[in-house]
Amino acid sequence: MDSLTIIAVASIVIAGITTGFGCMGPALAEGRAVATALTALSQQPDASATITRTLFVGLAMIESTAIYCFVVSMILIFANPFWNHVIAQTAGK
Amino acid sequence: MDSLTIIAVASIVIAGITTGFGCMGPALAEGRAVATALTALSQQPDASATITRTLFVGLAMIESTAIYCFVVSMILIFANPFWNHVIAQTAGK
Amino acid sequence: MDSLTIIAVASIVIAGITTGFGCMGPALAEGRAVATALTALSQQPDASATITRTLFVGLAMIESTAIYCFVVSMILIFANPFWNHVIAQTAGK
Amino acid sequence: MDSLTIIAVASIVIAGITTGFGCMGPALAEGRAVATALTALSQQPDASATITRTLFVGLAMIESTAIYCFVVSMILIFANPFWNHVIAQTAGK
Amino acid sequence: MDSLTIIAVASIVIAGITTGFGCMGPALAEGRAVATALTALSQQPDASATITRTLFVGLAMIESTAIYCFVVSMILIFANPFWNHVIAQTAGK
Amino acid sequence: MDSLTIIAVASIVIAGITTGFGCMGPALAEGRAVATALTALSQQPDASATITRTLFVGLAMIESTAIYCFVVSMILIFANPFWNHVIAQTAGK
Amino acid sequence: MDSLTIIAVASIVIAGITTGFGCMGPALAEGRAVATALTALSQQPDASATITRTLFVGLAMIESTAIYCFVVSMILIFANPFWNHVIAQTAGK
Amino acid sequence: MDSLTIIAVASIVIAGITTGFGCMGPALAEGRAVATALTALSQQPDASATITRTLFVGLAMIESTAIYCFVVSMILIFANPFWNHVIAQTAGK
Amino acid sequence: MDSLTIIAVASIVIAGITTGFGCMGPALAEGRAVATALTALSQQPDASATITRTLFVGLAMIESTAIYCFVVSMILIFANPFWNHVIAQTAGK
Amino acid sequence: MDSLTIIAVASIVIAGITTGFGCMGPALAEGRAVATALTALSQQPDASATITRTLFVGLAMIESTAIYCFVVSMILIFANPFWNHVIAQTAGK
Amino acid sequence: MDSLTIIAVASIVIAGITTGFGCMGPALAEGRAVATALTALSQQPDASATITRTLFVGLAMIESTAIYCFVVSMILIFANPFWNHVIAQTAGK
Amino acid sequence: MDSLTIIAVASIVIAGITTGFGCMGPALAEGRAVATALTALSQQPDASATITRTLFVGLAMIESTAIYCFVVSMILIFANPFWNHVIAQTAGK
Amino acid sequence: MDSLTIIAVASIVIAGITTGFGCMGPALAEGRAVATALTALSQQPDASATITRTLFVGLAMIESTAIYCFVVSMILIFANPFWNHVIAQTAGK
Amino acid sequence: MDSLTIIAVASIVIAGITTGFGCMGPALAEGRAVATALTALSQQPDASATITRTLFVGLAMIESTAIYCFVVSMILIFANPFWNHVIAQTAGK
Repeated sequence: MDSLTIIAVASIVIAGITTGFGCMGPALAEGRAVATALTALSQQPDASATITRTLFVGLAMIESTAIYCFVVSMILIFANPFWNHVIAQTAGK
Repeated sequence: MDSLTIIAVASIVIAGITTGFGCMGPALAEGRAVATALTALSQQPDASATITRTLFVGLAMIESTAIYCFVVSMILIFANPFWNHVIAQTAGK
Repeated sequence: MDSLTIIAVASIVIAGITTGFGCMGPALAEGRAVATALTALSQQPDASATITRTLFVGLAMIESTAIYCFVVSMILIFANPFWNHVIAQTAGK
Repeated sequence: MDSLTIIAVASIVIAGITTGFGCMGPALAEGRAVATALTALSQQPDASATITRTLFVGLAMIESTAIYCFVVSMILIFANPFWNHVIAQTAGK
Repeated sequence: MDSLTIIAVASIVIAGITTGFGCMGPALAEGRAVATALTALSQQPDASATITRTLFVGLAMIESTAIYCFVVSMILIFANPFWNHVIAQTAGK
Repeated sequence: MDSLTIIAVASIVIAGITTGFGCMGPALAEGRAVATALTALSQQPDASATITRTLFVGLAMIESTAIYCFVVSMILIFANPFWNHVIAQTAGK
Repeated sequence: MDSLTIIAVASIVIAGITTGFGCMGPALAEGRAVATALTALSQQPDASATITRTLFVGLAMIESTAIYCFVVSMILIFANPFWNHVIAQTAGK
Repeated sequence: MDSLTIIAVASIVIAGITTGFGCMGPALAEGRAVATALTALSQQPDASATITRTLFVGLAMIESTAIYCFVVSMILIFANPFWNHVIAQTAGK
Repeated sequence: MDSLTIIAVASIVIAGITTGFGCMGPALAEGRAVATALTALSQQPDASATITRTLFVGLAMIESTAIYCFVVSMILIFANPFWNHVIAQTAGK
Repeated sequence: MDSLTIIAVASIVIAGITTGFGCMGPALAEGRAVATALTALSQQPDASATITRTLFVGLAMIESTAIYCFVVSMILIFANPFWNHVIAQTAGK
Repeated sequence: MDSLTIIAVASIVIAGITTGFGCMGPALAEGRAVATALTALSQQPDASATITRTLFVGLAMIESTAIYCFVVSMILIFANPFWNHVIAQTAGK
Repeated sequence: MDSLTIIAVASIVIAGITTGFGCMGPALAEGRAVATALTALSQQPDASATITRTLFVGLAMIESTAIYCFVVSMILIFANPFWNHVIAQTAGK
Repeated sequence: MDSLTIIAVASIVIAGITTGFGCMGPALAEGRAVATALTALSQQPDASATITRTLFVGLAMIESTAIYCFVVSMILIFANPFWNHVIAQTAGK
Repeated sequence: MDSLTIIAVASIVIAGITTGFGCMGPALAEGRAVATALTALSQQPDASATITRTLFVGLAMIESTAIYCFVVSMILIFANPFWNHVIAQTAGK
């Protein structure tokens, strides 16, 4: 296996794992937040404005961690500095 | 094993694992959200409009993390830049 | 082991694992949703129309993640681009 | 080990694991659904028609994920395209 | 190790594991269903007919997943197409 | 290691594991069923006939999965078709 | 390592593991059954006859799975058909 | 490594593991039984005779599974048929 | 594999894992904090100012641990001192 | 590695693991028993004689499983029949 | 692989793992502390000064453990004595 | 690696693991016992004498399992019969 | 790999793991202590002096275990006797 | 790798693991004890003297298990008899 192949394989594997496992936490956390929001709504329908606003801020914060993972995956697939270096090195030979 | 085969195998394996495991979290989170929505509905039938709307927004947020995983899988199977590079390299030889 | 065999084995293994493990999450989530629907029905029989409708929308959302897994398995078994490439390559030799 | 043997072994192993582990989730989910149905029946015997109907729809949805796993196992044992290809290839030699 | 031995070993191992682990889920689920049936009976002895009927339908559904596993084990031991192919191939030589 | 030894070892290992692990699930499930039966008896001593009958039917269903495992173990030790084939083959040589 | 040694080692290892792990489930299940029996007795001392009888039947059912494991261990140590075959084969040489 | 050493090592390892892990289940189960006995005693001091008798029968049943493990360990260390066979074989040479 | 490739692979793998797994904890913690904030709001709508302010301070503290992980990943991909050293060393040769 | 060393290493490793892990279960079980004894005492100070006596019998039973583990460790370190045999064999050479 | 590369790889791997996993505990602990602070605020709005002060002291203590992990990572990346020694040794050659 | 080194390494590794893991169980159990003692004291301050005495007896019993682990570690480090034998053997050469 | 490199790698790896994993326990424990302190404050604001003092003593005790881990890491990085010995030995050559 | 290096590596690795993992149990146990002490204080402020005294005795007992682990680590780093023996042996050569 030459360097090119090894780096490609590592990037593929890690891109998948980072998104695959890194989305579990946010998904479960959002499920929990939505679930309590629904419980809160059914107990205090009058405070629906405050509850909905707080829920959306919270979901945005949680979604941000999922997006960190997705960003790292995309960087590894489409903007990988190690891959670019090796391609440049190979082309220059 | 030549480079082509290794990259193909890595892409197949990771595409499957990313979708297979990455769908667990969202599925469980959606199950939780739907479950509390049903509990909330049975306790406060009058607030069904607000509850249903909040539930759908929440499910969309959670489903988005499952879709990130599915997108990474599809990119790895059908639009894999590493595979395309190696195919081009092989064809150019 | 030649390339053909390795890719075939990887596809078989991942197709099975993706469906086998990827169906756990949705199954458990659907079980939870159905369970709370039944509890809700027994507490508020009058709201059965709303509860049933919300349950079916929720089950459809959850089932969608199980179907993502099944689709990836079927693509890997019957429409695998890597396998097709290697078959074409072998036939062309 | 020749290609034939390797693919046969992979198919046997994955067929067993897919069914063996893939049936855990549905079994536990059905157990949960049946359990809550029984609790609901004992609390609200009058709603037994609605409860029973919802339970059967839910069990059918959950059973569907178990059947996906069983279908993948059966495809791998009796209609495996990779195995057929290798058999054809061996016979043609 | 010749092909015959490898396939035999794989079939033995997977037949055992599929039944051994695949029976855990159904056993636990049936335990849960029976347990809630008993609780329900002690709370609502008058509804014993409906409870018992629902319990038996549910147990049959859950037992079906255990039987899928047992069927796969029996196919692998006594009606294994891969084993039959290799036996035929060996006999024909 | 010749074929005979390998198949013997695989049969011994799997026979033990199938029974050893496959009995956990049924044991725990029976423990749960018995426990709730005792709770139910102490709450509703008058319904002891129905409770006892339902308990015994349930224990029989659960015990059946333990017996599937024990049967597979006994088949692997005393009526193993792969072992018989290899013995016959060796004897015929 | 000759065949005799391998089969002896496999039998020793599996005999220990089958009993060692296979006794966990029954022990925990019996602990649970006894615990609820004691709770039931303290709540309904008048029903002690029925409770004790049901407890003993339940313990017998649970103990049976522990005995399956112990039986498999004893068969592997003292009545192992594979060991006997290899001894006979060695003696006959 | 000669046969003697391998069998000795396997026996030592399995004797320790069988007792070491096999005692966890019974210990936890006895802890649970004793704990509920104490709770029961504090709630119903008048039924102490029945509670104590049931507790001792239960502890004896649970202790029996710990003793199965200890017996298998002792057999493997002091009455190991495989070891005796190999010693005899070595001595007879 | 030369030094360059090994360091590149290690950096890729760890960058992905650090973000992928390191985001689980913060995501779950934020989900919990948001969930209790919603519960608190529905119980004490009058204290919404204090609750919201405390929630945002808390989310900032928790998000900081996610950002530590993201920072380490970015350092490993774009400002890796070990990679820079090896590149310089290679260029200087 | 000669036989002596291998057996010594196996004995050391297993002696430590058997005690190290085998003491977890009894310790946790004793903690549970003591905890419920204290709760029982604070609820029913009058029954302290019965509670204390039952506690000590129970602790003795649980401690017995920890002692089984300690005994196996001590046998393996100071009265190991396999070690003695190999020492004798080496000395006799 | 020369010494330089090995030490670089070890430092990269451990720097990532220390921060990635070491932040889970503090994140979850902070989530718990914030959650109970919110619950406490909604129950006793009058004590908000004391609660907020205690919360901030507690968060500072918990954050300190996350900072220990981050500090170790930074030391390993930017002030690693082992790396410096090897660089010096290499330069001096 | 000569015998001396192997035995030293095994002793070091197991001494650490036995104490490191073997102290978890007792620590958690003592924490539980102390916690319930405190709860009991706050509910029944009058019974503090009995509670304290029972707590100390219980802590002594639990501490004894931690001491078994520590003793095994110390034996392995400072009074290891296998190490002494090998030292004697080496010295005698 | 020479001795210097191996010891350096081991020290780096263990320094990171000790701090990374060793901080989980204290962090979670402090989170729990702070959480209950907040709950206690909201229930009994009058006892805030005693609660705060007890909390700080407790946090100091728990922090001490985190500091043990950090100290071991620092010793391994900056005052490692094994590293010093090997450096001295190398310099003396 | 010579003996010196192997023993140094083993000592480093185990010293870190013993402290790193061995501190988890005590930390969690102390967190639990402190938490219940705070709850007890808020429920029974009058008994603060008894509660505080019992808490400190309990914390001392729990801390003792953490100190066992720290002592073993320190012995392995600074007073390791195996290391001393090998150093002496090397020096004597």
